[in-house]
Amino acid sequence: MADGGAPSEPEPAPGQGRDTTPPRRRRDRAASQEAILEAARAELHEHGYSKTTIRAVAARAGVTHGLVMRHFGSKEGLLSAAIPGPRDLDVVLAGDSAGLPERIARAFVERMEMAGSLDPMVALIRSAAVNEPTATRLYTSMQEQSAAAYRAVLAGPDIDERVDLLGAVLLGVTFSRYVVRAGPLATMSSQTVIQHLTGLLRPIVQPRSSSRTGEH
Amino acid sequence: MADGGAPSEPEPAPGQGRDTTPPRRRRDRAASQEAILEAARAELHEHGYSKTTIRAVAARAGVTHGLVMRHFGSKEGLLSAAIPGPRDLDVVLAGDSAGLPERIARAFVERMEMAGSLDPMVALIRSAAVNEPTATRLYTSMQEQSAAAYRAVLAGPDIDERVDLLGAVLLGVTFSRYVVRAGPLATMSSQTVIQHLTGLLRPIVQPRSSSRTGEH
Repeated sequence: MADGGAPSEPEPAPGQGRDTTPPRRRRDRAASQEAILEAARAELHEHGYSKTTIRAVAARAGVTHGLVMRHFGSKEGLLSAAIPGPRDLDVVLAGDSAGLPERIARAFVERMEMAGSLDPMVALIRSAAVNEPTATRLYTSMQEQSAAAYRAVLAGPDIDERVDLLGAVLLGVTFSRYVVRAGPLATMSSQTVIQHLTGLLRPIVQPRSSSRTGEH
Repeated sequence: MADGGAPSEPEPAPGQGRDTTPPRRRRDRAASQEAILEAARAELHEHGYSKTTIRAVAARAGVTHGLVMRHFGSKEGLLSAAIPGPRDLDVVLAGDSAGLPERIARAFVERMEMAGSLDPMVALIRSAAVNEPTATRLYTSMQEQSAAAYRAVLAGPDIDERVDLLGAVLLGVTFSRYVVRAGPLATMSSQTVIQHLTGLLRPIVQPRSSSRTGEH
């Protein structure tokens, strides 16, 4: 991250009164990062992408604008960090390939059930839907990061295309169940969603070669 | 539709100068309806759901506000009529069931390729995404109408759930290819989209009973 301090010991921002002893400093740093990320998620949920400002996030977290910038560099950096990323995905994707479709379905549903429409992905989908250019860029870059993680575990032809289809399926389910929130997908139990989604993801994750031998 | 005229012969709106001879009247009526629908699609595309007004549609079509109201009754009625509906679907769904997944995929892609991001469904998805309540209602009622058409041709268990999944898949592809417009799904040929989408829809449209015998 951009850090104007001396290499050995970054300067604390003036007037912040942060403790400068290294061990506590590290704890403070982790705690303030987490407080900032929580504030960012809340602001994103309440105001959408374009109206979320570093200043409002800082105020909500009780820190200075400068501290947020030192931690995350930019609004995009902050919101990328606030949103579930490929770190979480790596854990899901590790394991036997037979169970992969269900693990992806389960991880997706469990994450969304936890946060529901509070999930920052929902705010980002909303913002991308109305074509806020930076939201669309952030959304696209997150998709690409997830795609890289999926790409590493999938086999068979047309991997990039299938990864994108997988993303589209999750997106469509998110839209129905967590954005529009009406219809069978919105009201069925999470176990039923996982079951349906597993069936939907299986041909993407594990294509039968017979169904893929069409023109190319 | 709401029509305040006498049952035998509706009154023309004062000052409109419409011809009252029945045959020409019918031609006029069809022509003016089509002009109003075209104007509605253009307004919806340019301004989204909430900012589209009957007045702007009337002005664009060169007719009076009153004529639009007599034809369509309300803004919801107008925009429902302007958007592709289950009438088109019935044609697609008729035919042999083996070819059904591909017919659905092809009809969807061909319709979207024709209109691209000008498709009124895209404007409606955008509006529903930001939770404009009337847009969400209209969106939901359209989904339900399509669902009824799909329901009539699908066999097997969990029809309502599968129809909703089918909708979610089409929605996710629409979002990637026509709203966000980035990534493999956005750049692949329409033939390739149809091919992938057919594979994706097949287990929804024609579930193998073996994969559905889990808990219920």
